[in-house]
Amino acid sequence: MSTAPNPDQRSNPRPPVDRKLAPWQLRLHEIIFEADTPAGKLFDILLIFAIFMSVITVMLDSVAGIRAQYGGALYIIEWFFTILFSVEYLLRIVSLGNPARYARSFYGLVDFISVLPTYLSLLVPGSQYLMTIRVLRLLRIFRILKLAQYLNETEILIKALRASFRKIAIFLFAVMTMVLIFGSLLYLIEGGESGFTSIGISCYWAITTLTTVGYGDISPQSPLGRAVASIIMVMGYGVIAVPTGIVTAELVAPITGKVSTQACPVCGAEKHSYDARYCKSCGSELNPD
Amino acid sequence: MSTAPNPDQRSNPRPPVDRKLAPWQLRLHEIIFEADTPAGKLFDILLIFAIFMSVITVMLDSVAGIRAQYGGALYIIEWFFTILFSVEYLLRIVSLGNPARYARSFYGLVDFISVLPTYLSLLVPGSQYLMTIRVLRLLRIFRILKLAQYLNETEILIKALRASFRKIAIFLFAVMTMVLIFGSLLYLIEGGESGFTSIGISCYWAITTLTTVGYGDISPQSPLGRAVASIIMVMGYGVIAVPTGIVTAELVAPITGKVSTQACPVCGAEKHSYDARYCKSCGSELNPD
Amino acid sequence: MSTAPNPDQRSNPRPPVDRKLAPWQLRLHEIIFEADTPAGKLFDILLIFAIFMSVITVMLDSVAGIRAQYGGALYIIEWFFTILFSVEYLLRIVSLGNPARYARSFYGLVDFISVLPTYLSLLVPGSQYLMTIRVLRLLRIFRILKLAQYLNETEILIKALRASFRKIAIFLFAVMTMVLIFGSLLYLIEGGESGFTSIGISCYWAITTLTTVGYGDISPQSPLGRAVASIIMVMGYGVIAVPTGIVTAELVAPITGKVSTQACPVCGAEKHSYDARYCKSCGSELNPD
Amino acid sequence: MSTAPNPDQRSNPRPPVDRKLAPWQLRLHEIIFEADTPAGKLFDILLIFAIFMSVITVMLDSVAGIRAQYGGALYIIEWFFTILFSVEYLLRIVSLGNPARYARSFYGLVDFISVLPTYLSLLVPGSQYLMTIRVLRLLRIFRILKLAQYLNETEILIKALRASFRKIAIFLFAVMTMVLIFGSLLYLIEGGESGFTSIGISCYWAITTLTTVGYGDISPQSPLGRAVASIIMVMGYGVIAVPTGIVTAELVAPITGKVSTQACPVCGAEKHSYDARYCKSCGSELNPD
Repeated sequence: MSTAPNPDQRSNPRPPVDRKLAPWQLRLHEIIFEADTPAGKLFDILLIFAIFMSVITVMLDSVAGIRAQYGGALYIIEWFFTILFSVEYLLRIVSLGNPARYARSFYGLVDFISVLPTYLSLLVPGSQYLMTIRVLRLLRIFRILKLAQYLNETEILIKALRASFRKIAIFLFAVMTMVLIFGSLLYLIEGGESGFTSIGISCYWAITTLTTVGYGDISPQSPLGRAVASIIMVMGYGVIAVPTGIVTAELVAPITGKVSTQACPVCGAEKHSYDARYCKSCGSELNPD
Repeated sequence: MSTAPNPDQRSNPRPPVDRKLAPWQLRLHEIIFEADTPAGKLFDILLIFAIFMSVITVMLDSVAGIRAQYGGALYIIEWFFTILFSVEYLLRIVSLGNPARYARSFYGLVDFISVLPTYLSLLVPGSQYLMTIRVLRLLRIFRILKLAQYLNETEILIKALRASFRKIAIFLFAVMTMVLIFGSLLYLIEGGESGFTSIGISCYWAITTLTTVGYGDISPQSPLGRAVASIIMVMGYGVIAVPTGIVTAELVAPITGKVSTQACPVCGAEKHSYDARYCKSCGSELNPD
Repeated sequence: MSTAPNPDQRSNPRPPVDRKLAPWQLRLHEIIFEADTPAGKLFDILLIFAIFMSVITVMLDSVAGIRAQYGGALYIIEWFFTILFSVEYLLRIVSLGNPARYARSFYGLVDFISVLPTYLSLLVPGSQYLMTIRVLRLLRIFRILKLAQYLNETEILIKALRASFRKIAIFLFAVMTMVLIFGSLLYLIEGGESGFTSIGISCYWAITTLTTVGYGDISPQSPLGRAVASIIMVMGYGVIAVPTGIVTAELVAPITGKVSTQACPVCGAEKHSYDARYCKSCGSELNPD
Repeated sequence: MSTAPNPDQRSNPRPPVDRKLAPWQLRLHEIIFEADTPAGKLFDILLIFAIFMSVITVMLDSVAGIRAQYGGALYIIEWFFTILFSVEYLLRIVSLGNPARYARSFYGLVDFISVLPTYLSLLVPGSQYLMTIRVLRLLRIFRILKLAQYLNETEILIKALRASFRKIAIFLFAVMTMVLIFGSLLYLIEGGESGFTSIGISCYWAITTLTTVGYGDISPQSPLGRAVASIIMVMGYGVIAVPTGIVTAELVAPITGKVSTQACPVCGAEKHSYDARYCKSCGSELNPD
């Protein structure tokens, strides 16, 4: 019947051209991709430990004092983990019937991007610090812990955010317009002396203020500038209410019940509550679901 | 039947005195005001591109280093776009049966104000930076993309904000009162040394604090001042909840359905939605309000 | 009948011992306390204008430069308004049958306190700046504008805040406990060098951080201090959700409908929805309201 | 009957091995653990007073100027209160039939930890400042005031937070991932000059920004860094909406009533509350889950 549109229909509907897998490939697949066997579980736990260690290595390497003393050791450890994850990536490819689909999936992309920065650092020094993106691989943690409940909750959150997407896009457009107009205004009023040296920086300040972050590295000094800034702050105060309201409304709905989507078979009126038996517009009996 | 009051009835109800349009005017109207024909769509895309370019020109011009080097070129580009938009504005006026209505509409005003700053800069140097208001013209983007869905969502947001208007006005009055009283108090306690040099500046600080922006360019230094500031901060914490609650409540309503306070005259059932005409429990007609 | 408890029953239930008023008193009462007659309306408009002017006088007087030049004139104006409001207060007392009740009411207290600071400034220099409390008198503005709708909305807001009072009190107790514990912790970790010179100041910093104000005049410098501060910030992030949720829940209720307060006459079950006809626990018919 | 699962079933279900108490132990128990008798009430009031005094002593002791002058006296007072609370703790243990259960309970642990810091300060100087944890003992205040209503509200709040726990855990995981990725990015872009001296500090800055605290001790200076920071701020703006929405949704539910997804087997009515056993429209029995 398919009354509700399938949210996954954007993924490739073409049936995968699966290769025939050899027994060692099936065994490998079981270890790497599943967490039900002891070997699979052990693999996942070791993997998560390695991800943690490699992220901590990068973070330590970024501290100047530590790099000066242990730079060499950290360099070797970084390459050790990178080669480890590269091999793991290749094994994943090898053990799959349809590796192209994995390579294009979210996890496949994260696994690939996680390995890149160290290689890239040979060309662009410093890019190894982007290795922290490996933290995204930790999402696998949910699989080991068998946190079906968590996945369910994640789905509710993502559904609410997706349902709010259009409203939030409009809201962001409105915010950006306010930022540009108020940024220009403050640039005109304050001039360069108090830090408003260009409209771009002025807009950066406006974002800082509207989001109530307020670093204070740039702040208006003239009475007029402060008066206008006060208006922005109070507006931002009202404005912060909007995305909260949007997301909350979507999160409240699954708990207290949405209005029904059924239409009256006689007059076509919509928005009946779920327990309505008669059309509230024309009084005809509604179809039971 | 018009059961619901028309939200646009505040706009001029007098029938427009439409001029008879010549064929070239009709053709022009189709290009400029509509986005269904290829020519109309092309016009809109070029227009949006021009708006983007002109805003970026102004932003670049505001950077001292860039202005020093490319000031002349940017000046010419600014005037080019201004004359372009002036001509476009005139064409809009010319191609309409009732130009007065357009000129007084939201889009008409934005189009007019977008052109002003450059001319104004001949009299008041610097006012050309207000040209960034042109970004408001980008609202037209929704029309090209045929984002009817977005317009629908925008309507829900605006409706929620309008429904919350009175509550937010009262709330702002309360906030302003708190700002004035706490501002005076901190001026008395702190005096001029830590930056509280007048009640006005003290109120600016109070707004900064209540909205949780907290630049830190002015902040209390005395123990008593800090104690009072702590009270303001905690109050602000509770206070931020109010506009959020107001807007959220309005946004929750269209999802879960507002309920009317009227009861069915036959069976006494309650909790009908506002637009119900028949009782959802027994199908009897409800009393019109 | 009186099914709902009267929210004003805390005010004095004893019947007022009204004096017999002379005709000039009745006339005075009409002008001062009512806004229906032209004279009453004019009085209220003049009063609001005077309140505005007197608040602006105090704000100007607090600016050192302006006080140096116009101090004498501002001093006279301040006393002029103070005497004006004192006379007005006396007239209010005189024109009432039961002046004691007015003197103890919210408006009566505000009117009295509004007059005090200038007199007090003869004893305690500087206290005249507290005159800004006069802004509270502007609440009368709602009466002139006949904003019954606004009063209604104010009532909804106050009702929601009152209903949330206990939850917010508990929440504030929890916040204060967190502030004290984290404040002590940061005092221990950071010591005096980065500004955490006592537990009191450390708690001030903790409030600044939990409320996301973040002035930055005091901020942790040591790695451990920053790690603990990060925990506080993320906790504050979750914590800000609580008062918002509390107030929002109360504001959503009157729009989408609360569960009914009626109990089943047979089994005593509660929390039926408003349109329930049969007890959801035992199936007996519920009493119609 | 026990239709609802007992929320306390996690506490020890094994029947306590109660000692036989002597009359003086019963009397002591009545004084220390109950607040119904005059002696018990007096004890609780004195205890709360002592807790307040001891916390204030520690706070005063942390102010360098006060410690220099009254250090000796404050040292004696601290030890006085510590010995007092130690004796009180021993009396609590002595007067209970099952002291092990008390010692492992929340209040028992708080009572024990409250006494530790002063003793610990003999080994680790400075640790006496952790004595402020005694403030947790003030939770007993609710018992004296017989604030059953407050306990009820506390339960609602805790229930809402517990119900939101999983959603908030997922949310925090997402936030931490964002913090690590954006922190690394800013470290790369800004380098050490503007304070981003390591990925760790960069992540601290990212937390500061995402939570909208914004101290401003570290803030991006380069145009690219500011552009990326703007994105983080706007994302943080949307992100703040999520925990608020989660908690609000749970707090709205008990007011407006959660709805079950089951339909009546006879009349098909939906939107029954979760604890409904009979259809609210036709009175038929609903299927048990």
